[in-house]
Amino acid sequence: MNRFDVQTDAGLLSPVRAGTPVEAAVCDRAWLQAMLDAEAALARAQAGLGALPASAAATITRLARAERLDLRALAVAARETANPVVGLVQAFTRVVAEADPAAAEYIHRGSTSQDVFDTGAMLVAARALELVRADLVRTARALAVLAERHRDTVMAGRTLALQAVPTTFGLKAAGWRQLVLDAERRLGQVVLPVSLGGAAGTLAGYLEYARIDGAAGDDYHDRLTAAFAEETGLARPALPWHALRTPVADLAAALAFTAGALGKIAIDVQSLTRTEVGEVAEPAVAGRGGSSAMPHKRNPVLATLIRSAALQVPVIAAGLTQCLLAEDERSAGAWHAEWQPLREALRLTGGAAHTAVELAEGLEARPERMRANLGDALVSERLAAVLSPLLGKAAAKRLLGAASEESARTGRPLAHVLAEKTDAIGTAELARLCDPAAYTGAAGPLVDTALTVWVTGESG
Amino acid sequence: MNRFDVQTDAGLLSPVRAGTPVEAAVCDRAWLQAMLDAEAALARAQAGLGALPASAAATITRLARAERLDLRALAVAARETANPVVGLVQAFTRVVAEADPAAAEYIHRGSTSQDVFDTGAMLVAARALELVRADLVRTARALAVLAERHRDTVMAGRTLALQAVPTTFGLKAAGWRQLVLDAERRLGQVVLPVSLGGAAGTLAGYLEYARIDGAAGDDYHDRLTAAFAEETGLARPALPWHALRTPVADLAAALAFTAGALGKIAIDVQSLTRTEVGEVAEPAVAGRGGSSAMPHKRNPVLATLIRSAALQVPVIAAGLTQCLLAEDERSAGAWHAEWQPLREALRLTGGAAHTAVELAEGLEARPERMRANLGDALVSERLAAVLSPLLGKAAAKRLLGAASEESARTGRPLAHVLAEKTDAIGTAELARLCDPAAYTGAAGPLVDTALTVWVTGESG
Amino acid sequence: MNRFDVQTDAGLLSPVRAGTPVEAAVCDRAWLQAMLDAEAALARAQAGLGALPASAAATITRLARAERLDLRALAVAARETANPVVGLVQAFTRVVAEADPAAAEYIHRGSTSQDVFDTGAMLVAARALELVRADLVRTARALAVLAERHRDTVMAGRTLALQAVPTTFGLKAAGWRQLVLDAERRLGQVVLPVSLGGAAGTLAGYLEYARIDGAAGDDYHDRLTAAFAEETGLARPALPWHALRTPVADLAAALAFTAGALGKIAIDVQSLTRTEVGEVAEPAVAGRGGSSAMPHKRNPVLATLIRSAALQVPVIAAGLTQCLLAEDERSAGAWHAEWQPLREALRLTGGAAHTAVELAEGLEARPERMRANLGDALVSERLAAVLSPLLGKAAAKRLLGAASEESARTGRPLAHVLAEKTDAIGTAELARLCDPAAYTGAAGPLVDTALTVWVTGESG
Amino acid sequence: MNRFDVQTDAGLLSPVRAGTPVEAAVCDRAWLQAMLDAEAALARAQAGLGALPASAAATITRLARAERLDLRALAVAARETANPVVGLVQAFTRVVAEADPAAAEYIHRGSTSQDVFDTGAMLVAARALELVRADLVRTARALAVLAERHRDTVMAGRTLALQAVPTTFGLKAAGWRQLVLDAERRLGQVVLPVSLGGAAGTLAGYLEYARIDGAAGDDYHDRLTAAFAEETGLARPALPWHALRTPVADLAAALAFTAGALGKIAIDVQSLTRTEVGEVAEPAVAGRGGSSAMPHKRNPVLATLIRSAALQVPVIAAGLTQCLLAEDERSAGAWHAEWQPLREALRLTGGAAHTAVELAEGLEARPERMRANLGDALVSERLAAVLSPLLGKAAAKRLLGAASEESARTGRPLAHVLAEKTDAIGTAELARLCDPAAYTGAAGPLVDTALTVWVTGESG
Repeated sequence: MNRFDVQTDAGLLSPVRAGTPVEAAVCDRAWLQAMLDAEAALARAQAGLGALPASAAATITRLARAERLDLRALAVAARETANPVVGLVQAFTRVVAEADPAAAEYIHRGSTSQDVFDTGAMLVAARALELVRADLVRTARALAVLAERHRDTVMAGRTLALQAVPTTFGLKAAGWRQLVLDAERRLGQVVLPVSLGGAAGTLAGYLEYARIDGAAGDDYHDRLTAAFAEETGLARPALPWHALRTPVADLAAALAFTAGALGKIAIDVQSLTRTEVGEVAEPAVAGRGGSSAMPHKRNPVLATLIRSAALQVPVIAAGLTQCLLAEDERSAGAWHAEWQPLREALRLTGGAAHTAVELAEGLEARPERMRANLGDALVSERLAAVLSPLLGKAAAKRLLGAASEESARTGRPLAHVLAEKTDAIGTAELARLCDPAAYTGAAGPLVDTALTVWVTGESG
Repeated sequence: MNRFDVQTDAGLLSPVRAGTPVEAAVCDRAWLQAMLDAEAALARAQAGLGALPASAAATITRLARAERLDLRALAVAARETANPVVGLVQAFTRVVAEADPAAAEYIHRGSTSQDVFDTGAMLVAARALELVRADLVRTARALAVLAERHRDTVMAGRTLALQAVPTTFGLKAAGWRQLVLDAERRLGQVVLPVSLGGAAGTLAGYLEYARIDGAAGDDYHDRLTAAFAEETGLARPALPWHALRTPVADLAAALAFTAGALGKIAIDVQSLTRTEVGEVAEPAVAGRGGSSAMPHKRNPVLATLIRSAALQVPVIAAGLTQCLLAEDERSAGAWHAEWQPLREALRLTGGAAHTAVELAEGLEARPERMRANLGDALVSERLAAVLSPLLGKAAAKRLLGAASEESARTGRPLAHVLAEKTDAIGTAELARLCDPAAYTGAAGPLVDTALTVWVTGESG
Repeated sequence: MNRFDVQTDAGLLSPVRAGTPVEAAVCDRAWLQAMLDAEAALARAQAGLGALPASAAATITRLARAERLDLRALAVAARETANPVVGLVQAFTRVVAEADPAAAEYIHRGSTSQDVFDTGAMLVAARALELVRADLVRTARALAVLAERHRDTVMAGRTLALQAVPTTFGLKAAGWRQLVLDAERRLGQVVLPVSLGGAAGTLAGYLEYARIDGAAGDDYHDRLTAAFAEETGLARPALPWHALRTPVADLAAALAFTAGALGKIAIDVQSLTRTEVGEVAEPAVAGRGGSSAMPHKRNPVLATLIRSAALQVPVIAAGLTQCLLAEDERSAGAWHAEWQPLREALRLTGGAAHTAVELAEGLEARPERMRANLGDALVSERLAAVLSPLLGKAAAKRLLGAASEESARTGRPLAHVLAEKTDAIGTAELARLCDPAAYTGAAGPLVDTALTVWVTGESG
Repeated sequence: MNRFDVQTDAGLLSPVRAGTPVEAAVCDRAWLQAMLDAEAALARAQAGLGALPASAAATITRLARAERLDLRALAVAARETANPVVGLVQAFTRVVAEADPAAAEYIHRGSTSQDVFDTGAMLVAARALELVRADLVRTARALAVLAERHRDTVMAGRTLALQAVPTTFGLKAAGWRQLVLDAERRLGQVVLPVSLGGAAGTLAGYLEYARIDGAAGDDYHDRLTAAFAEETGLARPALPWHALRTPVADLAAALAFTAGALGKIAIDVQSLTRTEVGEVAEPAVAGRGGSSAMPHKRNPVLATLIRSAALQVPVIAAGLTQCLLAEDERSAGAWHAEWQPLREALRLTGGAAHTAVELAEGLEARPERMRANLGDALVSERLAAVLSPLLGKAAAKRLLGAASEESARTGRPLAHVLAEKTDAIGTAELARLCDPAAYTGAAGPLVDTALTVWVTGESG
């Protein structure tokens, strides 16, 4: 097994993202390409301001292809300098020098590793977020369909593991959708800026080269930043952010939120999938959900995958947030501790979002099981409300406690037991009050209102 | 020691917040008061819609004072029901019943523990955030003064623990300020809504009581939510959020960011305070920073306190974010795991912000030490820029590496060593290029631009 | 509200520990007492070696009572020095000086804040762990009773939310117990040493005073450490550990494990408590588990409290483990970031353990519901095993998949469906194979073996 | 770019482990091989008990080679079943069936995905830990050399960022070594067991097949577990641990400790490497530590790499510890959330340990800089000790405070300033007391004692 040949991680331990589009968008090769894109964009930006020849920028851009470099060799060489950019610049310079030695002199001109790495990271993040957000929009749409279709599908509301009062599956789906919209909005609000500070955040190297090349002048640093942002499609930062890690912390928070929001859907699906509950089922696909030993099982694998991501991303995000404590003008470690976790957060969240599309679009709701599972104790709150004005709050509570207990113990309907214990309510009225389906409060209108909210740029 | 008398935590282990305003704003008594405020606001909201007598709401409001209840007894009783609201409602009902038995019947009408607890939590958070944000604004102002005053104060820029290229203390202070503004903005964007869902998020109990009292009607749930929001000053949620924990996750993220941002300032202050660096000093206050054993020390205690908070909040936030995985209509544990960490995140961050005001307002910069510490190797990047077009990039780098090494080994000025090794640059020009103070790039203009950005509602 | 009077935290937000013994053992007053105990033990140790008068040590010991000091004033004063020991020494010196000015000169002789704080912390931890471990032993005992009693009580084994194959409640209880034993052992293995290093870990101050007082001599540092350990009952460390935080990291890991282990029990109890499952119930206690709105509910509050702790402690432990990165001879922040989280981890875990005793001792198992819930698909694995040699593995799997699906869809018993589809197995044999109760594998013997393992110092 | 061809992660973002031995030991291919090793060991164990033909076990063993399977295809297929074992068994069965259809029937007999995955994971962990521990032993040895060589090399002890009292570099190195020994011991104590439970932890499938094949009998489950442990070299568990995740939590804790312990060394090296301190330097290696822009820099890259790992592993460990909350007999998500983080913790820690060897073996100490940096304020504690009996503790502290301040302000030696202010100590004695090198307390003997402790199985 050649040591430079090893696939160190091809997704075997992370099925939530194996083979999903986000995985390719954040893989090492994509990251390398994004750093080369940053080098090329920098050259073009400098050329646009007269700081280097346009032909050199064109050559640099044309040759800035990841496949021309030995990814694994760069990875291993990064140990010598604690980052992959030093080696990348050397290797890329050799590639360009072969074609055009003069152009090679202009690579990485005035720059620093962190400018290239961080700009590359932001490009990767931008590309990944586009995928994630698109999957969230699809998920939200599918959940809207569920919410609308099941606006009046009654089911047990459950709190602290027990049936509490009735709710509707539509309201549950609308709640899931709301979380997905919240996630999409938070991802959309993250600002992804170029990194352009030079060795210690003053852009002195860029200015010095521009001065030498006769391109400097008023606000050169500002014009260069603007041009770099323009070339990459990223935002302009307020200040060079080598040691001001707002973008990474923002990404971490929004990704953790997204994974957690999807995780909420997943655990609800699992709760409702339980053999004894059986109120929903994951989409049936041939071969999906099979067990290696038990032919009868159709495991809720999509929810399982999503939940596995939701359990991982928040702690990863904590690590990224702690990297705000980056000392001096560049940290000796806190910066380096961001890279792999940021990628991992992106691909876990992206994998979860991709999986959520399939879950939401194919989820099968079983209204008849929902109805059958409704215990009649679910109306005890309503009965308390009706009886309290008649008997006093405390006496009503005692009566209902005793009746609920007797009904649960004997299996007799609560209405019958109550009828024996009190004549405060007539039998017909009691039957009406004891119908769980008639006690869903504002569930319907809440769904209606929730569905009027759409994701950015979308209309109903 | 009476078991109900114990002060379980009076701040002894958390000096970063002991005695600061935020501590009082989030203490148990303040939390209890906020929950009572929620009960009172709910009664007034219901009264305003005709669902209960205005006089009852007035009585409930008048008596809703934390000092009338036994805080510790409620805390201990909460073990029986897994939340403090059940006991609070019972105890508060007794208090009101003594004064007005009829009014007592209207307490917590149609409500559920989580509505009261979560609304109380949002009130506490709103009150705490107001303090935190005001302290961030003060901190940002003090840092603006430092940035302006030291716009051109040259110091070593340091990366990976070593002097790299020159920068200015003004740019450093402007960067700190930028993080503080980022934090203030993120805290300001957190939406804090009332919680109003009833037993399982359908508001059925509220509607049932309103029906009984003849107050229900179209959109009652909507009008009640609006009135509750109005009475509390909190926002209206998109949906009942018992199990959709966006507000808590948002708070967690913004607080972790804030603590981390302040932590960055703290570790920079510590780095510059080191005996061998000595470029800044914390404000000298009698008795401050003393050691129990070493009379000569003036420890950077403010930075230490801030850093202690910055190390704690991000992991706390991770725990809170994971509580997004709240199953069903109310989680049996994930909700309960939020309470203490949310308070802890608020008071650590608030304590850090309060401490940061003092640090920023009193920080002493020592320009002479900054100047004295500047090594002349700091200009090696500049020399590389100048020499590269003359000698080629690789040859320039080799020359400078050798010269830097020789200069460091022998202690001779870099300009002298270089002059011996190359005549590519004239002596006078070499002297100019070797002056670190002349190589601060765009530091000055960057400070100018950064200072044009102000916090919300503030002008320069 | 007097600012020095505020109860900042009386347990209102943390019912899992409110009023439990561990809470009192780790409260601020207990911590203060432990630090005073450390000061007194140090004086006695020094007196025993002739470094100070025995009478002074006796006076110091007699007066070292937390109630003589103003806890809240010390907490607030700690902001000036970033730790509470400087103020404690000053205040305690005043107390002693009033009684005996000469003795007061010997307080904290040669010492440093961290020696006193860390030794106090270890004393607090030792006292708390004793409580926690005793509760774990009681929990394990109760679970052993359950495991033994239900050795052969058949229930559904559930994997990925679905019924899989049969198991027994005894095996489940034995597994819970095993985790509790694992936790107890890990807590028992944590070494809690005295801290004795002086200002920077060389004990120079102690030696200097001993020299002045004529007590120094060969191995004085060693004899002093031994005497201090003896006086406190703590262990002797390999080296002064001001910046070598093994004990804190060990505590963090063992506490996180314990909380997590108890959390596993809690979520299993919740899973089995669900209305639709109903296989266990928490101990019924008057008033316990009540809802503020729904008279019929008996919430699994003990499991909820335990789970709330289990969700909090692991992230707290991560924060504590990160404090291993303590720079220099004493960190300016990493040390300070340990204190409150360490206390929180102790009291959450201790509260969970205390709650677990009650849960385990009172847990009601419902064998009849367990039996009723058993679906006959549970034997599909067994049928596959029997059919595979007869039909080939693949064909057997296909047949069973089809039969399971048909049985689930039609509600007809699996044995009947299968009998129609194959005659590979006779009807009587098929009936036998389809009895879930006859397919519990080694569950019984596994329980027997597991119960032969006991906690340290205990016998069956 | 072929989607099944992508190297998703070749180490580009994680230089701390890129190309180190542990990376290969835990890569996807190694993990796949370990799972195949588990299948083969299971077959041999069953054959040894007569449950399947020895020839089948031999064939299975011979063909159980990762290179025969399509790793990437398995990774992607794992999305269908939420784990890679289902696909692995199918693919491996095809491989064996081609060679020997009869043998293929015996693959994975009676088994379940989790048995194979978890046993594979423990094999991977065992192989990785061997590498990590060997590197820790080498690191400890190199640190022992440093500690011994610099037993009496005086340097400033630093607390809260400031010089405090003198210490020795030997004591610092001995402390680092102690942490490494602590780590090695904790890793050595982790018990890595086989996983053998069958579908839901009862081993029913194994017993059923053995019964069919006439191999069952008393204690078959016990004999099979023993044989499986024997064949794999792993430990025997107390109980099947599908949902009792002690081994994973133990690994997580020990790895987090190890990474943190190494991180402490790294930040100390960085602190001492700072340009203004310069007391140590990382090993000089051609090309190492280069900057992309600044020829003069020799960045402390080894410490940076180690620190980057130390910042990541503790939060990863928190995620793993939380997976103790695995519901039922197999969690639908908590199990799956362990895999990638466990691998990441192993390879980050292993990479850090490998890097630490190089750091410790090549670290250059600079005694002359250590001596030159010693401020004379370092003896203020000593002077306080001497002056306190003469002047009283409070007066001595005041005098020293004033003298230290004046000395620092004027730059005059502390001894001179003090001589002017008091005649309590003679001039010669004052000079002696003011020599920092004479005030290292017990540093020497502490080093001697610490070095008598060796790692398991090693002698001095």
